[in-house]
Amino acid sequence: MPSASHLQALLDRPAGAITDVAGIEVGHHTDTRRPTGCSVVLARGGAVAGVDVRGSAPGTRETDLLAPGNAVQQVHAVLLAGGSAFGLDAAGGVMRWLEERGIGQAVGPVRVPIVPAAVLFDLMVGDGTIRPDAAAGYAACIAAGTAAPAEGAVGAGTGAAIGKVFGIDRAMKGGIGTASCRVGGITVGALVACNALGDVIDPDTGAILAGARSEDGRHLVDTRRALLAGVPPKALLAAANTTIGVVATDATLDKAQAQRLAQVAHDGLARAINPVHTVSDGDTLFALATGQSQARGQPGMVVLATMAAEATARATVRAVLAARSLRIGGLHLPSARELQQP
Amino acid sequence: MPSASHLQALLDRPAGAITDVAGIEVGHHTDTRRPTGCSVVLARGGAVAGVDVRGSAPGTRETDLLAPGNAVQQVHAVLLAGGSAFGLDAAGGVMRWLEERGIGQAVGPVRVPIVPAAVLFDLMVGDGTIRPDAAAGYAACIAAGTAAPAEGAVGAGTGAAIGKVFGIDRAMKGGIGTASCRVGGITVGALVACNALGDVIDPDTGAILAGARSEDGRHLVDTRRALLAGVPPKALLAAANTTIGVVATDATLDKAQAQRLAQVAHDGLARAINPVHTVSDGDTLFALATGQSQARGQPGMVVLATMAAEATARATVRAVLAARSLRIGGLHLPSARELQQP
Repeated sequence: MPSASHLQALLDRPAGAITDVAGIEVGHHTDTRRPTGCSVVLARGGAVAGVDVRGSAPGTRETDLLAPGNAVQQVHAVLLAGGSAFGLDAAGGVMRWLEERGIGQAVGPVRVPIVPAAVLFDLMVGDGTIRPDAAAGYAACIAAGTAAPAEGAVGAGTGAAIGKVFGIDRAMKGGIGTASCRVGGITVGALVACNALGDVIDPDTGAILAGARSEDGRHLVDTRRALLAGVPPKALLAAANTTIGVVATDATLDKAQAQRLAQVAHDGLARAINPVHTVSDGDTLFALATGQSQARGQPGMVVLATMAAEATARATVRAVLAARSLRIGGLHLPSARELQQP
Repeated sequence: MPSASHLQALLDRPAGAITDVAGIEVGHHTDTRRPTGCSVVLARGGAVAGVDVRGSAPGTRETDLLAPGNAVQQVHAVLLAGGSAFGLDAAGGVMRWLEERGIGQAVGPVRVPIVPAAVLFDLMVGDGTIRPDAAAGYAACIAAGTAAPAEGAVGAGTGAAIGKVFGIDRAMKGGIGTASCRVGGITVGALVACNALGDVIDPDTGAILAGARSEDGRHLVDTRRALLAGVPPKALLAAANTTIGVVATDATLDKAQAQRLAQVAHDGLARAINPVHTVSDGDTLFALATGQSQARGQPGMVVLATMAAEATARATVRAVLAARSLRIGGLHLPSARELQQP
């Protein structure tokens, strides 16, 4: 396992942020009552969008309209939230904030803001009756801006945990992270809230950064190798895990291309999380294309896809590296850096 | 880049084979006229099957019937072939071989063998008018058995090349590989023919094993980092790349679970190939569940999925490590091991 100084060096490496993408703002709302929250990715000018759901236990809203053949061409925000399916209500607050500003799909005299959303399960971290609601979504919009968003245990990542194959008591702290890549004047950025069942891995070295711990809680067990060696997983709560996120670009894409970008972004999750896309995860990624780059021309889809996968993998790693340890009730979820303390 | 001895050690590591799965036989047909061929995965006793197509440029046959809601419940073989879309005809030879043995879906008085197929593009390697046909598919069936199949430039991997982002003249040799994992008396194996646009990577270390070479042909360029640094890809032939394969298990699955296994097997490709699932790849993986294990009980889907992704990643690495260099016409496709020669 990498040393604490190596982890810090990884985190200190310049990574960019999803807000480097022209036309994108991000806001977090972090609940002060218990570890949960939500994060909004705003595209006030509208964005062509796609989605790919690859976990078996997703919690989503407004994903069907993203199918390339369906009518709506642009969305105005994506909401990521804790609170499991209850957290989907936070999208209503984002809609209200957008409606107050006259932003939405014109339908006769009204404007309907289009706000796809995905949630993660954090109801076992503290008082599960406290969940992000419409007020939380609204607050995230008020907090939104073009500055690089905070990372770690904030917003939708506040109550996230990872490495849960052998039970929550051997898990570690998850969080939310961001990163971006820039090629030829085009930026692709990602925002990922990682609450995965699996371990989180540095794809550049194969090293496990955080994940399921040994029974004494002091070491990483390497979930993949343990499972392949026949160590049985703990009986899993069907929907207790999920990694959700957004990849955004200022390139100009059509809906089918946006969907493709969401699909290949999952390759970034596959590289940074193992196991991933399990029957107990609801892994869902959205793609947004604002078309607001000033660049003349843009890289083709092979390059954009490479950028999307890379930004997603880096954002996932950062979600965990930036997280702080959490103690609540009898639960202790150490951060990657805490586990390295002597 | 790993040394030649490291590559050999990786290849020599015991890896298992898809034929370790009870009820599975594999046969290759390698064309003697030019580098192309096909490989058949036979499940004479029938297998519940699924598929996941994640590249943008697939060539497939009999994939729609695999949708969980559709009627057919079992398939009898999967064919992997070179020859681009022309190679789909080889599935007809597999059907004939099965029909002669009375194997197939009973429809009134007749039996219709169900043989899904996927192809890869190898028409630029030698005389592209030579393609796997029905006779080739039939020959692959005759050659089939339960012995571990040959790897490298045989069967569907005969004409495969990888690392083509900067053109075929800077590519390297691809091939076909196999691997398996065993947990609790259940085996999951993979057979992968790798003809990817991207580089092939050892997921355990992040090291590139083979891929696009420098202009002088002597070094790997690291396609991902080159693209992210703004080096433009060569204008791509839309369908000139593809990784195709089969994951098989002797566990008992339903169609939806088999489809899920095919989906998560793509995570193995994501770890072993970068970039992958591009608009210029037709990446397609099938899953087969024979249900022929004698084990009492079986691991759940989280473990089976971890096994499928692992076997797929290892098979992909082996496809390239086992390949021999190819010279044909003016084209030179060095193998991973040749590139390491001083």
